[in-house]
Amino acid sequence: MSRRLVLAAAQLGPIQKAEGRDVAVGRMVRLMETAHRRGAEVVVFPELALTTFFPRWYEADLAQADHWYETALPSDATAPLFAAARKYNLGFHLGYAEKTPDGHRYNTAVYVHPNGEVVLKYRKVHLPGHREYDPQRKVQHLEKRYFEVGDLGFPVVRAPIGENEVNIGMLICNDRRWPEGWRVLGLQQVELVMLGYNTPSLNMENRGFEAHHLRVAHSHLSIQAGCYQNACFAAGVAKAGDEDGHELFGHSIIVNPSGEIMAQATSWGDELIVADCDLAMCELGRTTIFDFARHRRPEAYGRITAQTGSVAPPAWTPAG
Amino acid sequence: MSRRLVLAAAQLGPIQKAEGRDVAVGRMVRLMETAHRRGAEVVVFPELALTTFFPRWYEADLAQADHWYETALPSDATAPLFAAARKYNLGFHLGYAEKTPDGHRYNTAVYVHPNGEVVLKYRKVHLPGHREYDPQRKVQHLEKRYFEVGDLGFPVVRAPIGENEVNIGMLICNDRRWPEGWRVLGLQQVELVMLGYNTPSLNMENRGFEAHHLRVAHSHLSIQAGCYQNACFAAGVAKAGDEDGHELFGHSIIVNPSGEIMAQATSWGDELIVADCDLAMCELGRTTIFDFARHRRPEAYGRITAQTGSVAPPAWTPAG
Repeated sequence: MSRRLVLAAAQLGPIQKAEGRDVAVGRMVRLMETAHRRGAEVVVFPELALTTFFPRWYEADLAQADHWYETALPSDATAPLFAAARKYNLGFHLGYAEKTPDGHRYNTAVYVHPNGEVVLKYRKVHLPGHREYDPQRKVQHLEKRYFEVGDLGFPVVRAPIGENEVNIGMLICNDRRWPEGWRVLGLQQVELVMLGYNTPSLNMENRGFEAHHLRVAHSHLSIQAGCYQNACFAAGVAKAGDEDGHELFGHSIIVNPSGEIMAQATSWGDELIVADCDLAMCELGRTTIFDFARHRRPEAYGRITAQTGSVAPPAWTPAG
Repeated sequence: MSRRLVLAAAQLGPIQKAEGRDVAVGRMVRLMETAHRRGAEVVVFPELALTTFFPRWYEADLAQADHWYETALPSDATAPLFAAARKYNLGFHLGYAEKTPDGHRYNTAVYVHPNGEVVLKYRKVHLPGHREYDPQRKVQHLEKRYFEVGDLGFPVVRAPIGENEVNIGMLICNDRRWPEGWRVLGLQQVELVMLGYNTPSLNMENRGFEAHHLRVAHSHLSIQAGCYQNACFAAGVAKAGDEDGHELFGHSIIVNPSGEIMAQATSWGDELIVADCDLAMCELGRTTIFDFARHRRPEAYGRITAQTGSVAPPAWTPAG
């Protein structure tokens, strides 16, 4: 039987700091309606989809930032998403700031079954940015302040989506640049990576390495390589446009296991893109060029788990 | 002081099965002369540069293949390369089939100092293809027959090239598709990856995963992602063109730490490409977005070294 999945990526335009969750949720419900009309079985929303990208705003007292976090899903504010999922028989992926009952804070994503159950939860592992206010920066990027490192690893679960059972996993934003995360998912036969991001168009730590005009290219390069090298699909879904004067670059994409871009958002606003995914491609990749059991050589990979930072290599000593 | 390196990649056109090493070496010496005229300080030759890509030819008795291997470097046949290196003060990277005194066979590469000393040796870890004759295939790809898995890991050494000390490492052909190899090099602060390949234009194991027209794209994608994610330069250097009716795809490239292609060969013959590499880019990458010590999370990467093949994920169980 053919395993085909109709996958939607729902890019969100900007959410201003002053806007409440009702604004974002209302727009997301409209995107779910559109996804339904396009025949989608699953819709992927971005990282921190319910609010502005608040890690750009400093709070000396973390408790003053509590209003950016969710303490329960669903909540009154997010209930309309769950209602729409049920109405349209549409699973959805949602990124949000999570505050746990015991006070831990994570940059989190969930995949929600149309019946409202959380099928999979992931907490971002690779937090970019910094912890303390940095007077050198024009714009803060305080993810290391507002979130703890995710404690769930990179989980994969086989879950029903539409007619199929699909091996789903997640990455969040900066995770996409780290091949380790992709590979841990690949080692669990991931078929669909749901990946939300909020990425500024301008690198505020720019010291010459990353030109502004390459930022979209680097994002796409990382996602395309991750999909190709792990024989999986991904929906890389952005928050886009101008949030209180700070531009996010958009360019959401759906990528296939050949690393090809199947669909791309080209606006800076709310935009739904859809692709028809042949899940058989994943198995083909897994059993040929990326048959890990046949080709991987973990005995040569020791440094990947044995060390965190890089070390300088030895200097060559001429025999003469 | 500015750290700039003039890097040359010397693509080789086809070498027919009947042609001796003298033919290849003569062409390589001419490319070294060209590299010298372009001001290059180092030239990178492909994988198995001295002969045709012999793993396409089956020998029941391995001893009958001995003539494809080098037992010493330099040898009478390869001495002209060493002489040219000295004459032009030009380091060179050479891929060749190695047979050791105790009878082991490897797909090997070395970097040779202009004075003729071997600075670094690497033996290919990720061997593609198969070990036994496969009657299903129109063309054999017997690397797993002709070579043992490399036993040197992914070494990096800090070596003099021209005016600079450069952290050099190597990958060979199929290695480039495996982010693990790149990362092990990156964890040793590699600045220049020398990478030779022989890649057929047509995938003879084609079962639908990899379309022929994507093969160059996949090669470039892997090299560009490897360079970006490890903040290094690479010279990806092909054997190209029609070897006894079997086409190799060429498209050698030099890539910078932003993943950008700086130079590309566009012929299917002997062709030298050159790029002026600012090694400071490597350090910038290593100290910002890819500051491994600050951002990597090995505690979440355990599967990468703990398992070889992939495992199926657990199935989701609805709470209801």
